[in-house]
Amino acid sequence: MAGLATIKDVAREVGVHPSTVSRALDPSQRDRLGEPIVARVLEAAERLGYRPDAAAASLRSGRSRLIGIIVPDIANPVFSPIISGLERTLSARGYALIVADQPPDRPEQPDILQMLVARRVDGLVLANVSLRDDAVGRCLRWQVPVVLVNRAESAGRVPSVVSDDVAGMRLAVEHLVGLGHRAIVHVAGPQSLSTGSLRRRGFIEAMLAAGLSFGDHDIAEAAAFTREGGLPAARLLLAQRPDATAVVAANDLLALGVYEALREQGRRCPDDVSVIGHNDMPLVDLVSPSLSTIRISHREMGERTGELLLDMIGGVCAATPQIVTQPMLIARGSTAPPVQER
Amino acid sequence: MAGLATIKDVAREVGVHPSTVSRALDPSQRDRLGEPIVARVLEAAERLGYRPDAAAASLRSGRSRLIGIIVPDIANPVFSPIISGLERTLSARGYALIVADQPPDRPEQPDILQMLVARRVDGLVLANVSLRDDAVGRCLRWQVPVVLVNRAESAGRVPSVVSDDVAGMRLAVEHLVGLGHRAIVHVAGPQSLSTGSLRRRGFIEAMLAAGLSFGDHDIAEAAAFTREGGLPAARLLLAQRPDATAVVAANDLLALGVYEALREQGRRCPDDVSVIGHNDMPLVDLVSPSLSTIRISHREMGERTGELLLDMIGGVCAATPQIVTQPMLIARGSTAPPVQER
Repeated sequence: MAGLATIKDVAREVGVHPSTVSRALDPSQRDRLGEPIVARVLEAAERLGYRPDAAAASLRSGRSRLIGIIVPDIANPVFSPIISGLERTLSARGYALIVADQPPDRPEQPDILQMLVARRVDGLVLANVSLRDDAVGRCLRWQVPVVLVNRAESAGRVPSVVSDDVAGMRLAVEHLVGLGHRAIVHVAGPQSLSTGSLRRRGFIEAMLAAGLSFGDHDIAEAAAFTREGGLPAARLLLAQRPDATAVVAANDLLALGVYEALREQGRRCPDDVSVIGHNDMPLVDLVSPSLSTIRISHREMGERTGELLLDMIGGVCAATPQIVTQPMLIARGSTAPPVQER
Repeated sequence: MAGLATIKDVAREVGVHPSTVSRALDPSQRDRLGEPIVARVLEAAERLGYRPDAAAASLRSGRSRLIGIIVPDIANPVFSPIISGLERTLSARGYALIVADQPPDRPEQPDILQMLVARRVDGLVLANVSLRDDAVGRCLRWQVPVVLVNRAESAGRVPSVVSDDVAGMRLAVEHLVGLGHRAIVHVAGPQSLSTGSLRRRGFIEAMLAAGLSFGDHDIAEAAAFTREGGLPAARLLLAQRPDATAVVAANDLLALGVYEALREQGRRCPDDVSVIGHNDMPLVDLVSPSLSTIRISHREMGERTGELLLDMIGGVCAATPQIVTQPMLIARGSTAPPVQER
């Protein structure tokens, strides 16, 4: 195995001092040098096979320029645009993103949070906090800057970037009420998660604001934010409230579970029952019927999370801002006036 | 800001030697100690706010235990299960995954590959190689173990894990021929990518094997593997071959672009034209009509990529294996016999 070229090798080749090579290789310092010398250094570094070493530099500076994000499920299409927006913001500022998966069914096994902190990440993004776990407390004890995204904790000890879940549910309920629905039920997400709990509260508040009555039989909690979780909850709800004309689901995957429950019973959407989801994840415009939903700009949430975290790391951000983005109604084919209104 | 507890602090608290604390904190060495002492060390470490430091350990060992993956688009649902399978395999072995996005429209800007190598990743996974770029050559010069996933390079200089694209297209064409189709056309992916190029070759081979003639007018190349890329290619193809009864798309997103082109022309799928995709990405079972496609097990590809890379890093893997996973036909509602056969 041939040795790798060093900064000194490159300097000798170009005929400059090693510090000039270092500067030419560092995008943030490069503009202090003339363009021709930068070009010659880059060409020689590439040709000689010089391998840059940010790890040694980070040990000198005490900064790893690594950011970690923990998500409950990388494969869930909701998290992809958050990760993508975050990564773009970070890489533009010279930071790299470590992505780690911690499904709720594998709690603390292995201890992902500790693994990331042990790698000296400069900051952490948690997309998986539940209202009950202590990930935030551990980050605070370890003095690692942390931002929560998508889900927040009730204590508000650290900054967060979330969608206005209560407002989103108000949009959903008002849309259905506007179409003439009165018998509206809710497939709720897990109440251990802020998204599940806040959307349930938003549903209740919006129903009260519309002057509609409802009871325990009008809400069923799904075990997980998945199609598989939505199906049994929807079955239960449709059995308890066979007169319901509309279902508000706490996310799009749950709404697709409601579609399945309706199909099982031979009931049509939206002819017999209207359905509305939450998130506007990719492809729900193409399912049949196309899903009405509440759009959340996950990519923007990822970008703002990155900006916030970099501000914290840079010491710019003194307070603990709770950023709340505004959702938007996307009315498609799955919601229509109830039969008696037509 | 209070100082962080060190290994020595934990050792003093528990009343053991610091090396015992190190061992208790390392999952791979822990079983040499008794369970009570491990429990006491972990409890004290947590209580005192000891922050583990794998970065210093990695500098001693020369191993960062970081793996990088570069994808062309994190938000594309095809890559999520690859990343997820890879991350699971790596984290089980104590490795963390850095995910970086390098969309083809932002070539080398910033130089993501160099950023990852500078972070001393122990290995790299490239999910974005085109047949023309030199990412592989640079990794070889830098002596960084690398595995290609999803897309391969023709030179075969490094190991790869890909689906059998040629076999997948054979399954698609044979399915349509079995239904009675003869006038079959192909919306191809970008020919600069192995997936685009191999699937096009697979289409041609399968058509020849079935004894069907075809010419230049029967294949249109999409500019990107997206819905937006599929639409103009499908328009062109349907104009050139108005008699075509079936379209084979090089991936599912392209197939959804074909749906749109058919809708524009007022032609129905599958009544007028059958459509088949490739990948079986999430939710294509729910679009209307449900999409027939070729299933690729992306999660398994991610897992095998991780195993292969860890073998290379461990020095186990001497050759450059080219792992090819077998795809599977998933027949759904978008393919049916042509009208004249009914």
